[in-house]
Parts: sequence; structure tokens; C-alpha cells
Amino acid sequence: MIKVAIAGARGRMGTTAIQAIEEAKDAQVVAALDYKYDGKYLHNSIIIDEEMGIPIYTSLSKLAEECAPDVLLDVTDPDAVFQNVKEALLLGIHPVVGTSGLTEDEVKDIEGLVNELKVGGLIAPNFSIGAVLMMKFAQQAARYLGDVEIIEMHHDRKLDAPSGTAVKTADMIKQVRPSHIQGHPEEQEHLNGARGADVEGMKIHSVRLPGLLAHQQVLLGGEGELLTLRHDSFDRKSFMPGIMMAIRDVVGRTDLIYGLEKLL
Amino acid sequence: MIKVAIAGARGRMGTTAIQAIEEAKDAQVVAALDYKYDGKYLHNSIIIDEEMGIPIYTSLSKLAEECAPDVLLDVTDPDAVFQNVKEALLLGIHPVVGTSGLTEDEVKDIEGLVNELKVGGLIAPNFSIGAVLMMKFAQQAARYLGDVEIIEMHHDRKLDAPSGTAVKTADMIKQVRPSHIQGHPEEQEHLNGARGADVEGMKIHSVRLPGLLAHQQVLLGGEGELLTLRHDSFDRKSFMPGIMMAIRDVVGRTDLIYGLEKLL
Amino acid sequence: MIKVAIAGARGRMGTTAIQAIEEAKDAQVVAALDYKYDGKYLHNSIIIDEEMGIPIYTSLSKLAEECAPDVLLDVTDPDAVFQNVKEALLLGIHPVVGTSGLTEDEVKDIEGLVNELKVGGLIAPNFSIGAVLMMKFAQQAARYLGDVEIIEMHHDRKLDAPSGTAVKTADMIKQVRPSHIQGHPEEQEHLNGARGADVEGMKIHSVRLPGLLAHQQVLLGGEGELLTLRHDSFDRKSFMPGIMMAIRDVVGRTDLIYGLEKLL
Amino acid sequence: MIKVAIAGARGRMGTTAIQAIEEAKDAQVVAALDYKYDGKYLHNSIIIDEEMGIPIYTSLSKLAEECAPDVLLDVTDPDAVFQNVKEALLLGIHPVVGTSGLTEDEVKDIEGLVNELKVGGLIAPNFSIGAVLMMKFAQQAARYLGDVEIIEMHHDRKLDAPSGTAVKTADMIKQVRPSHIQGHPEEQEHLNGARGADVEGMKIHSVRLPGLLAHQQVLLGGEGELLTLRHDSFDRKSFMPGIMMAIRDVVGRTDLIYGLEKLL
Repeated sequence: MIKVAIAGARGRMGTTAIQAIEEAKDAQVVAALDYKYDGKYLHNSIIIDEEMGIPIYTSLSKLAEECAPDVLLDVTDPDAVFQNVKEALLLGIHPVVGTSGLTEDEVKDIEGLVNELKVGGLIAPNFSIGAVLMMKFAQQAARYLGDVEIIEMHHDRKLDAPSGTAVKTADMIKQVRPSHIQGHPEEQEHLNGARGADVEGMKIHSVRLPGLLAHQQVLLGGEGELLTLRHDSFDRKSFMPGIMMAIRDVVGRTDLIYGLEKLL
Repeated sequence: MIKVAIAGARGRMGTTAIQAIEEAKDAQVVAALDYKYDGKYLHNSIIIDEEMGIPIYTSLSKLAEECAPDVLLDVTDPDAVFQNVKEALLLGIHPVVGTSGLTEDEVKDIEGLVNELKVGGLIAPNFSIGAVLMMKFAQQAARYLGDVEIIEMHHDRKLDAPSGTAVKTADMIKQVRPSHIQGHPEEQEHLNGARGADVEGMKIHSVRLPGLLAHQQVLLGGEGELLTLRHDSFDRKSFMPGIMMAIRDVVGRTDLIYGLEKLL
Repeated sequence: MIKVAIAGARGRMGTTAIQAIEEAKDAQVVAALDYKYDGKYLHNSIIIDEEMGIPIYTSLSKLAEECAPDVLLDVTDPDAVFQNVKEALLLGIHPVVGTSGLTEDEVKDIEGLVNELKVGGLIAPNFSIGAVLMMKFAQQAARYLGDVEIIEMHHDRKLDAPSGTAVKTADMIKQVRPSHIQGHPEEQEHLNGARGADVEGMKIHSVRLPGLLAHQQVLLGGEGELLTLRHDSFDRKSFMPGIMMAIRDVVGRTDLIYGLEKLL
Repeated sequence: MIKVAIAGARGRMGTTAIQAIEEAKDAQVVAALDYKYDGKYLHNSIIIDEEMGIPIYTSLSKLAEECAPDVLLDVTDPDAVFQNVKEALLLGIHPVVGTSGLTEDEVKDIEGLVNELKVGGLIAPNFSIGAVLMMKFAQQAARYLGDVEIIEMHHDRKLDAPSGTAVKTADMIKQVRPSHIQGHPEEQEHLNGARGADVEGMKIHSVRLPGLLAHQQVLLGGEGELLTLRHDSFDRKSFMPGIMMAIRDVVGRTDLIYGLEKLL
């Protein structure tokens, strides 16, 4: 039985994670790390005083001492993550991190600590296996079908365009295909922005409409053919298998894994 | 039997039109109007001297005198169209025009002449019934689902973006829905152009990839739902039914029709 | 202000309807008709004893006397609907019915009563404006592009295949296009069922997968082109505009309307 | 410079292959193997008597003696392939085979001969890199998203359903996922065939419409998400890169490769 402590347990991602772990037979949530509510309990997403549900700690060392978790699953904001992860490693707890907010330097620091202490860790900016497969396949396919456009589509309450996943996809493709101009060399854009955002020749288009949830398609064109890789995310439940895959994998590791795609 | 003269018979559109008319049982091509090759013949897309195939004229009045066409189908460049159409009307020939290149003033002039002479005519910027239905439906649906984005996708030899059909679609929708900002009011475009071209709040995205032919989708979003209207044009043969519909319709008319959608 | 009584208020559809009406400025929910809980109140989807929220009645005549509704919105099971509607009409209340479960005979009976009493009513098997537009457009387009296949896609907890909407779409298309064999006349199905269900030549394909919600596409093919009409239903909120459109329309009616498409 | 002989040069696939090889800078067509026209020449897809274009042979041994090809590209019907390939191997010529018509026993025989003679060969049922990637990705993804449905769409002149590519895709997926019932266990098909053809629980749906070319999508569903892999084949030119990849690869081989996916 893998014992898991969760940082960020009260958030939407944390709620999903608790559900995923509780539905698994080989793992259990033993504690929650929080910046407040020390000594209280999280029971069915509510903070209570009675000793029922998941005990809350504000100190990871005290949590470790009393609950002995194998894994710290951190789904908090980027601010707290870096400290949490370092502390976990020093306490011999395997960190599983679910944000894309860590800087390159922070990731390097963590990697150094992991290698020194031989306590494996995993950082996954995206826990959706379907989304990760789409990105991985896009990268593989771009070696052969090198002209690529990305269309990402989200609800109209989203603030930023393009989406993080679209940018990540383009970054992954950049690693395998040489930068080149796509489209007709003398192409004329009669209305500004029609041809989308440019990333080394690749185009990204961001659609925002009420009704939409979170969708992305990667179009790869070759002479006479088109390959389309599409992912639709309808519900946060889609993160569950990825979360469990990460938790089960990390307890046997002594190195740092960046990206769920490394496990696929 | 409807007798048709064709201007632009040697072009790709003309070749398709000749085929469409020859496959129909109620129409026939009686002559070609051209700026050269007077007295020669067009036979299986080749210019020949023998009296075989379609006789070519450089003068419409001489063509009318000798071949007495009911209809002049004009699929030439915009330059020649306006003169051809006026001359046809004066000769009592119904013009069917297949370009979008006429100016508003020219269309008004033609309309005046049509009404004066009671010789009906038809101007159809797009002969594809599927494309025309897509535009018409988009306009109807936008009354109820007012947030609209258009994604048009073409081969990468296309020079202009967005496509004429995409702009026409947006224009048709503008007539029925009030202009408004779409997306989050505080939306931020981290990469220029990601959110596409803007037409009164509507967004147009132009995809260009090798392999693609001519495709367009109109996405209309409402709370909790999405309606997508998509047209794929795989072959110029798709223009045939529209060309025949126009020819059959125009011979019974005394007014001017603009747009094939009026006949649907 | 339009006063609305709701039958089926405790169900999922009823909850959505209450929310839609409460968000509108020109309508309000005045009472709930139920087969139990007489005298109690429905408050935030919970049954309570205190006089707070929506009063519940088991008798429509008593409800009418005390609350004087203009409209009875019935989103119950098919069993109760027929009696509810007849009683409403006799009490001068406009019925709006949201099920497809009424038989043809029952609909005729209701129509007779509506015409006799001059109290207008509306029966809408589907309140999603997007879905209704898709069906209406499919019917219109099938006049020109007569070869049609329907792909409907739902979550894998759905019991029946094909979906009611797919069958309704095929029925609507049947009215405008002559029955004919689609595909190659000598077509061979090497695996049973590959070519889908047949409705007068049209094919229906039912996809069931975890993750999916409720989606349908209608594909209409012509020489060299394809028109695709697709509707994605992501959330029951998509019914709200249709419900309000029906309620606002019915109060000014003296006839019976069948299908929301009549109002579009 | 790789010297290539082609069997099946007069067919549509052969014509495409000749074009692909002639556009490449590192390969050339040195001869055509045919069952007739010995001593004549193939020049721009026409059989001529003058010594111009590609010389035609009816005997592979004579062809080998006079033209010394490195590769025999065989795009003939399945009947002739087996003999051609064996003869090529004995002559030290690398065979590249583009049909799916060889039996398992024949493939094993060829493999035996390849290993004995150390003359590498390649059998590729599909030369489209995009289609091969789609199948390969579908197989990889099915390990994680095990509920799969395939929708293949072709023009309505196609005789057989489902398509060979759809069956091949299902076969590849079968190798990695356990057979299981998809959909609701008590699912009811109210119209025969609605749920498609069944391959160990996977469903295959075949759409046939005028206008369509050759398209396939593989839908993989998981809790809360959907991954769609789609390939559109618009033109036989899409086979060119795969043909050249095979020719370049096989000259350095001493083993037998089955499937272009092995090279990707």
C-alpha cells in the first residue's frame, strides 16, 4: 500500500487526486499538507474538527513523523512547490509535482538534490494521458510530416492565448524539425492575425467560444495527405489515471522524471 | 433544350462547365466566346481547325446571330465580365456569371439593365451548393448562437488569407447579429495572431498546409453546446449541380439574382 | 411577468428549467406540480417544510386556483404528461412539454383540445437550439445533397442505439428525399454491421465510448464535396435558451406547436 | 545512385512510383518488368517502339543481366508478386513489395530465402506514412485508452466494408489490449448494425458517400477524455515519401521488414 500525502488537497485538482487515490486499491491518502488548518481534518471536501477523514498538517516534518508517507503529491500553486519538494526529498519522501510553474533553475536544483539523495521524483505539467500522448505523437509525426498547425479551442472564460498545452506542443515539435517558413512564401494576410501565431514557422490558432471545454488538434500536412491528432478533455476525471501512474512509478525511482510522456 | 454559350471555355472552370452541360439532358453548349481563336473549334479541351466540337467566336453579336444561345455562362476573369454581361442582355441572352470580381456599382448597373430589358440574369460568386448551404445555415444559426469563429483550411499554394468564402461568411453573419466582443474581455494574446483575424468580434483562422484542398468550418457556440458547419471541397466537379441549377433557373427569369443561396 | 408552474421540478431537467426561468427577467416559477410532497416547498433542490422557495401541489386545479400560472412546463416522464396537459388546457394554462414520449394519437387529442379551447401549447422533444438547428439544416440540405449518413456518439452508459435524435433526424430527412440505396450497389459487408443501421438507404452509426458526452454529426455527400453538420452537447445548460423561447412564445398562441424548429 | 526496376509500371501505383523515383536525386528507374511488351519502351505512361524512356522486359533474369538493378519495386497484383520476389532474391536484387495480398505462408517462405541469401527485402501493405503513423499511434495509445472505435470513410464506389486499413488497425490494437466488451453491458440495438462491426469489442463503422476520398479516424476514449487520430488521404502522391523511404532503406539490409511502421 503506497501512502500518499497531498499538498493542495482543498483545491479542485486536489479533490480529484484524493478521489483517484481512494478508488485505487494499492494506495491511500494519509495526510494533507496545508498552510493553515493545522490539526483539523478534511472530510468529504469540508474542514472539520472531529478526527475523521484526512489529518491536516502545516509542517511537513511533523506530517512525515506521524504519517510516514511514501509520496508527496503536490498540486498547489507554483509558489509553495519548490520548498515543499526540497523538504520532501530531505525527508526521504518521493515528490510528485503537478504544475508547470517551476523555473528551469528550480528544476535543475531539484534534479541535483534527487541525484544526491537517490530519492526519485516526478514533475508532470499535465496529468492527462490523452493530452500527453497527443503531444508525444505530434513530435514523432513531425519528423515525417514537417508542416504543422495547432488549433486549440477553449471556453471563453480563458484569459490567455495560446494555451500552455499548445505552446508546449510546439516546443516539443521544435526539437525535432528544422525551423522553416510554412505556407506560400508570398502569402498575404489581408486581415491581421488570420494566419495565427508563429512559432518557428508553425502556426497556432486559439478558438474561444462559450460551450467549449478544452480541446486541441494538431494538423500535420504532407503531399496529398493530412494527419490530425485531436484531444478532447471533457472532465477533470481524465487526470486520474495519470496521477496514479505517477504515484506508482515514483516509489521505485532514484532519478527525476520530467513529463508523464517519459512513462508512456 | 437550353442553348448555352460559354465565355472562358478554355479555363479549368470552363472545362468543368462544358462537362456539366454535356452530361445534362436538357442543355447543350452551342458556342464559345473568346478573345482569340475566332473561327476555330474547341474539341476535348484542344483548339482545332476542323469543324468539330464547339465553334469559337470573338464577337458576341455574331455568336448570337449564328448560334442563338439562351444563356451566356461567363466564367472569365473579372475584366471581361462586365462588358460581356451588358452585351448579352442587349442581345436578349440571359447571363450567368461565376465570379465574385464585379464591383457593387457594376452589379447595380447590371441590375438596372436587367429590369429595363426584362431579361433575367444570375451572378453566383460560388457554384458549390454545399458551400452556399454552409454559409446560409451559418447566417441562420448566428441569430441564436451569436458567438462565431471560422476556420478555413487550404493547400499551401494559396496566396491570400483569409479566403474569400470565409470573408463572405462573416459578412453574411454580420447582417443578422449585433457586433460584440467575443472571448474574455481581459483576454491576453501572448503570441501575436493567436486569436485570429477579427471581423466585428468574429474570429477567422486560416490554416495552410500541403495536402489540404479547400475546407471551411464555422463554429457557433452557446452555453453548454457547439454547432459546427463544415464544408469540404475535394473536386471541381462539386460546381456542376450549381451551374446547372443556375442555367435552368435563369431562362425563366426577368430579374437579377445575386448568389446561388437565393435559389435554395 | 410570465408565471410558470413546473411538473418534474425535482428531476435534472426540472432543476435546469428552474435555473433558466430564475435567470430570466420576464418569467418566474410560481409552483411545482408533483405526485407527492403536497404542501411542502422546494428550496435549492431540497424538499423542506418551511414556507420558502417553490410551493408544491399534487393537484393542478388547486395549484391553478392559488398560483394562477400562465404556463405549465412539464418535464416529467411520459406517463404523467398526457393527463397533465389536458387538465392544464381545461384550466386555461398553456402547456409546454419537453418529452418525446407522447404517442401520435395523444398528440392529436391534445391538438384537438387546443383548437377547441383556443389555449395554445407547445411540445418540444428537444430543447437544445443547436440540436434542433442541426436537424433542420440536415433536412434542408438533403434536398440537394441526397446521400446521408449519421454518426451519433455518446458515453458508454447509454443503453439504446441509435439515439432518439439520430432517428428523429433520419425521419425528418425521409420527408424530403426519395428512398434510395446508398453506396455501391454490389457492396459487400465482410464484417456484420460495418455499414451501420439502415433507414431508407441512409446509414446511422452509433459510437459509445467512456469520456464522450452527447454528439452527433450528419454527413451529406455530393459529387466532389461533403457537408458536415455537427452538434456537441456538453452541458444541460444548453437547454435553457430553448426552454425560455418556448415559454415566451406559448403565452401568445392559440394553436399547438410541435417541435422547437417551428420557432426558429 | 540506386537503380530500380519496377513491376507493375503501367498501373496507377506504378505511375506514381516512377514519378517519385524520378523526382529523387539518389535513385533512377532502369527497367520495367511486365508480362507483355518485351523489347518495347514505356515513355510518359505510353508504350512505344522507339528506344526512349524505360525498357520493358518479360524476363527478370534478362532484365538483371542488362540493367543490373539494386531494387525490384513490385506494385503488381498479388498473383505475380510471390514469384517475382523469389526470383529477385536469387538474382541478388532487393525486393520492395507494395501489396497486402501475400499469404502468411508466402511471407514466411520469403523470409526464409532472405535470411539464407542475406539479401534484404521489404513488404509494405501501405506506403502512406501518415496512415502508417495513425495505425502505429493507435496501437500505442490503446495500451492506456483501451476503449476504441474506428470510423473509416470512403467514396461510394468502394465495394468492400470495412476497409483493409481499418481491419489492419484493429488487428494491431488487438495485439496490445485484452479483448473486452465495450459499451453498456445491457446495450440494446434498436436498428440492426447501428453499433457497427465488432472486432474483439472494438467497433468499426464504414461510411460511404459520393464526394469522399479515403479517410479514417480512430477514437480512443478514457474517463473524461477522448483521443482522436485521423488520417485523410487526398491524393496518391501521399505514397511517394514512403516508397522512397523503402527503396533507400532496403539496399542496406540483409533481413526482411514487414510494414513501413518498422522504419518510423
